[in-house]
Amino acid sequence: MAGDPGGEQLRMSKQQSTLARLMKLQGDLRVDFITSPALQGNALGDPAERPLAVYLPPHYDPESSKRYPVLYCLHGYTGDVAGLLAARPWEWNVVQRMDRLIVRQQMEPALLVIVDGFTRLGGSQYVNSIHNGDYATYVTRDVIGHIDGVYRSVASEGGRAVFGKSSGGFGALHLCMNYPGYFAAFASHSGDSYFRYADPPLFVQAQRALEKFDWDIAKFVEHFEEANKRPQSDYATMELLGYTSAYSPRSAAAFDFDLPFDRKTGEIRDDVWARWRAFDPAEICTAKQAELARLRLRYLDCGRRDEYALDVGARVLASRMREMGLDVRHEEFDDDHRNVGYRYEVSLPALAGVLERA
Amino acid sequence: MAGDPGGEQLRMSKQQSTLARLMKLQGDLRVDFITSPALQGNALGDPAERPLAVYLPPHYDPESSKRYPVLYCLHGYTGDVAGLLAARPWEWNVVQRMDRLIVRQQMEPALLVIVDGFTRLGGSQYVNSIHNGDYATYVTRDVIGHIDGVYRSVASEGGRAVFGKSSGGFGALHLCMNYPGYFAAFASHSGDSYFRYADPPLFVQAQRALEKFDWDIAKFVEHFEEANKRPQSDYATMELLGYTSAYSPRSAAAFDFDLPFDRKTGEIRDDVWARWRAFDPAEICTAKQAELARLRLRYLDCGRRDEYALDVGARVLASRMREMGLDVRHEEFDDDHRNVGYRYEVSLPALAGVLERA
Amino acid sequence: MAGDPGGEQLRMSKQQSTLARLMKLQGDLRVDFITSPALQGNALGDPAERPLAVYLPPHYDPESSKRYPVLYCLHGYTGDVAGLLAARPWEWNVVQRMDRLIVRQQMEPALLVIVDGFTRLGGSQYVNSIHNGDYATYVTRDVIGHIDGVYRSVASEGGRAVFGKSSGGFGALHLCMNYPGYFAAFASHSGDSYFRYADPPLFVQAQRALEKFDWDIAKFVEHFEEANKRPQSDYATMELLGYTSAYSPRSAAAFDFDLPFDRKTGEIRDDVWARWRAFDPAEICTAKQAELARLRLRYLDCGRRDEYALDVGARVLASRMREMGLDVRHEEFDDDHRNVGYRYEVSLPALAGVLERA
Amino acid sequence: MAGDPGGEQLRMSKQQSTLARLMKLQGDLRVDFITSPALQGNALGDPAERPLAVYLPPHYDPESSKRYPVLYCLHGYTGDVAGLLAARPWEWNVVQRMDRLIVRQQMEPALLVIVDGFTRLGGSQYVNSIHNGDYATYVTRDVIGHIDGVYRSVASEGGRAVFGKSSGGFGALHLCMNYPGYFAAFASHSGDSYFRYADPPLFVQAQRALEKFDWDIAKFVEHFEEANKRPQSDYATMELLGYTSAYSPRSAAAFDFDLPFDRKTGEIRDDVWARWRAFDPAEICTAKQAELARLRLRYLDCGRRDEYALDVGARVLASRMREMGLDVRHEEFDDDHRNVGYRYEVSLPALAGVLERA
Repeated sequence: MAGDPGGEQLRMSKQQSTLARLMKLQGDLRVDFITSPALQGNALGDPAERPLAVYLPPHYDPESSKRYPVLYCLHGYTGDVAGLLAARPWEWNVVQRMDRLIVRQQMEPALLVIVDGFTRLGGSQYVNSIHNGDYATYVTRDVIGHIDGVYRSVASEGGRAVFGKSSGGFGALHLCMNYPGYFAAFASHSGDSYFRYADPPLFVQAQRALEKFDWDIAKFVEHFEEANKRPQSDYATMELLGYTSAYSPRSAAAFDFDLPFDRKTGEIRDDVWARWRAFDPAEICTAKQAELARLRLRYLDCGRRDEYALDVGARVLASRMREMGLDVRHEEFDDDHRNVGYRYEVSLPALAGVLERA
Repeated sequence: MAGDPGGEQLRMSKQQSTLARLMKLQGDLRVDFITSPALQGNALGDPAERPLAVYLPPHYDPESSKRYPVLYCLHGYTGDVAGLLAARPWEWNVVQRMDRLIVRQQMEPALLVIVDGFTRLGGSQYVNSIHNGDYATYVTRDVIGHIDGVYRSVASEGGRAVFGKSSGGFGALHLCMNYPGYFAAFASHSGDSYFRYADPPLFVQAQRALEKFDWDIAKFVEHFEEANKRPQSDYATMELLGYTSAYSPRSAAAFDFDLPFDRKTGEIRDDVWARWRAFDPAEICTAKQAELARLRLRYLDCGRRDEYALDVGARVLASRMREMGLDVRHEEFDDDHRNVGYRYEVSLPALAGVLERA
Repeated sequence: MAGDPGGEQLRMSKQQSTLARLMKLQGDLRVDFITSPALQGNALGDPAERPLAVYLPPHYDPESSKRYPVLYCLHGYTGDVAGLLAARPWEWNVVQRMDRLIVRQQMEPALLVIVDGFTRLGGSQYVNSIHNGDYATYVTRDVIGHIDGVYRSVASEGGRAVFGKSSGGFGALHLCMNYPGYFAAFASHSGDSYFRYADPPLFVQAQRALEKFDWDIAKFVEHFEEANKRPQSDYATMELLGYTSAYSPRSAAAFDFDLPFDRKTGEIRDDVWARWRAFDPAEICTAKQAELARLRLRYLDCGRRDEYALDVGARVLASRMREMGLDVRHEEFDDDHRNVGYRYEVSLPALAGVLERA
Repeated sequence: MAGDPGGEQLRMSKQQSTLARLMKLQGDLRVDFITSPALQGNALGDPAERPLAVYLPPHYDPESSKRYPVLYCLHGYTGDVAGLLAARPWEWNVVQRMDRLIVRQQMEPALLVIVDGFTRLGGSQYVNSIHNGDYATYVTRDVIGHIDGVYRSVASEGGRAVFGKSSGGFGALHLCMNYPGYFAAFASHSGDSYFRYADPPLFVQAQRALEKFDWDIAKFVEHFEEANKRPQSDYATMELLGYTSAYSPRSAAAFDFDLPFDRKTGEIRDDVWARWRAFDPAEICTAKQAELARLRLRYLDCGRRDEYALDVGARVLASRMREMGLDVRHEEFDDDHRNVGYRYEVSLPALAGVLERA
């Protein structure tokens, strides 16, 4: 792992980066490129070098002794660091929102780190996969290691939170439930949960699409990559492949994984489906009481018109955590799965508020 | 200009009915109103008297000794007899299609009977339900009894086929699998099958909608009935209620049935869900080998873009019947769930072709 | 179980028709078939014989001396008599609504007559066209003549109103503005008006579609008629052809009319467009003060989300009539162009309330 | 005007910018911030300082004597520089496409400059407006001046082309037709043309939306800016306001412009509409023969399913230019208005191919 915090960082204290200026931030934004051993040699040929975006609040001073808690942001499926840094008129990306919240003193200053979990199949779900690479290790070891090595972060569990939307929310849940000791809080916005509603609709679309490619997955993926435009069902198929590569890989050979449905008929393969469900936060949370109990904040929200029924997923999760005697902050709102970044206005102050400072 | 009022009743015995004329049939169409003991006293207050549409092919003569096989048509969910008789410019309803097929000699003449299986909740699924009434008995005993008593039908199993689209296809499968001896053939067009894909999406929509009505189902139903316009999710909720009243009724008291999901979270209630799945043709067909084996024709088709994944349902069904050693006519086509009446051009000749004539 | 076959023709003179029973009316419904000289020999080969649906309110007695005012209903583009008689679960067609209003004593009893103005191109707009036939004459002379000859109608201008939705509303406006002396009132629901917004979008779709058919209109029409399913743009193209055949015909030869756009580029042909606009109620109303002034009721409504901007059309019309010193009943509501039959609950009582009775 | 090409530019020759790395370019990308006198003191309070993105092809060397032609890219309505620099997985923005084309030697190396023409109302249309500021002057004087002053560009008409999509295509047409001598070629992708189809549908949506705000435009704009989500009709309304501020401004006071429709009824105000049409390339091109004739390349394309009928606009324009004896490269393709960036693969090499090099 070799970050490159050299020349640019020096500049940071005196002059904003181009990106920060384009986004009209008051704080600063830099992008480091780190190389993660955990991602090397993966079956998809995805790079081990990844961009890592780091937001520094106003008055951040690398020379000072002051340290900041860190919010780790995990993007959703089809996202990546560049995608989350996109700035569009009349919209606010996560960096712009956090900068504004801090400037308006609606949240405590903190660092924001945006992690790149993209794969050639659209996303890693932030899990360790024999096929995709060890994305959980990459986040918890390599990304955190870089940040704590280079920035003035509170370098301990109590100073870190992890959050994200959709697959990013799933990632936050997954890391907290399975890798205790790294994060003290999570926020899952419309996070993948209760797969029984969310995922089977993808099986059908993928069965239809892949049959047209004679089950040659490489051919489908190349077709997808080269297309000028793609029907929604192709996105759903890619999504299915992404999840399959994370939840039911078979080996480290490219595209060698078990589809959760029968190729001929499309019916559910319950053996593979069980492997998927072993990743479902709604199903496994009851076995993760200790991991969940050590957290300072458990935050869940979802729109009540979520197309993947993740509102049910959040309800199930909240209900089970409460049955375990754990507090949960659980909110619902009248919206669907898309463009709910305005919910960060609720979660980011809450996360920053419970973390340690120094 | 020559109006022709008053003459209609004279024409009726010899000439076409008004409906037949409106539909530009060459055969005739009449609507009987029959009263079914099987439907009396149901919880929903639905009438025991039902319209029964009977199409008579050209040259049908009640005085002749010639007898015709009978195709029983079961409408889909939200359908009824009046709905199936609707005639729209540039469209062909099932009666018009069958009339045209016979006139063009693309199928053998037969009677067509359209059965009314509507309930206040949108459809009976043609099953016997302690809550809705005994719709299977109504079809197999009361409807068939009326037809064989009044018309020149081939009054035996070998002279009858049953078909329908969507819930009508399900009804055809249900009656053939569970009430052997009445029908010699079925055609299921986009028929409900493999509930695991088709039904859970309804649970989510219903959970959200009914929560807004504080789980007062009567209130929701009245609201639905009185609305000028209804969102799609209200239709889905009604559909969920219709299926619940058929598959998991609790008593003969109005709206007393078990929802297949938890009210608070929306998660699937596996105990109730198992009761539903006991009606799923794809799941129970393996136990119905004898009933299926006695049939002369087993016809399934579905569009490969079916929104309820009933193409998978048809594939599973076809696959399992073939594993039992049974022939199946199984076709797929490039379309979705709506307006696939043109498929009758394939199924009706096939059904008429295997039935007994006299 | 008690079927009731055979008795139907006996019932007919005293009892309800099959259609009335299917629709669960308390009044009665019959369908006459009249032959109109005005429609004979038209270029499209459309029949001169047309169905004419006549609703008779409860207690209507052909032997009595009592006479009823008559509401003439004009269907919209793509509609016909059979289409308006379609009855669907949870919906109310115009006959069912009027029957219910009378039964509930929310409107004065009246006859309802549904006129068939369909053509092979989807609709006549109820105008006299050298190409399509003289639909205005057909309505004002042949249809009215039949009704007044056969039914106990108030056979004078003061006893007749005309109404409809969309192109039916346009027809009502057109007949009242151009054929004074037949009707004493109109109701235009979402009626075509202010063509400058409503029609040009059709030009573009038609230009694209017809180019694919090398401008062979007959070929397009046949393709349309034979299709199992049609894209929305094909409907728009047919609609454009329907309007063209009504507003800018060139001769009595089939499909000989002037398209309102340039074939090569698609740009508007202002000469033809001017012929269209000469039919636009919003444009010509100022020249029709006398015809409008003699009416007892001028009723306009439209949804504020009308896809054809006919809400603007109604506003322009209402505004200009008021500038002429005429009273207008003009209502708006929060809906689009589709399924606004519930508005009849407002217009039908209003129309029936101003007509002469005897 | 004060560009800021200081410190960062020095770095450029040795190390890629962060943005270039995030976009995985082989060339480099920098963003200058320039201050334009032409934009100062505008009614909307939009900044006079604007980002200007400059792509430098591989081997670009500020110390060398080699000079490159320059392609000026104008974004569409709702776009800005940051928006065009957004990079999303599986997509290629204009910079990435051009870099790839050059690397693959599918086009001659050139500079690419992305101009910011955003206003608070969503876009300037690149016209001089008493209300918005003088965007045409800003581009032709200030932007070109900066580029030619700082970069190794071919600093003459023969070395410059201008292109864009949608309103960016309009801008390219507008600048070439009205400001001869700056650019030697244009490419208009789905560019605004033939307003008679494209614009009136916006009037209706705006009339409905603004009425709800009692015609308080400032209030509507603030509501729009603060909304988490916006209905499509709000975007259409904003678009209407943007065009109005460009085509029919009344003064330099905020929101003081003439709407092209009557507030009360929504009907078209032909006087204002005439002012709009004076900007329509399809209408004015016949008066711009000299300006068009001096160009080396006139490139137009549009999808045949363009929602604004800009395919007709391109056809009219191509037809009229050909009638003037001018060559036009005019292409059509099977797509709609959205995401047609892949068309740059055709236009960019064509533009680069006709420009002067040194």
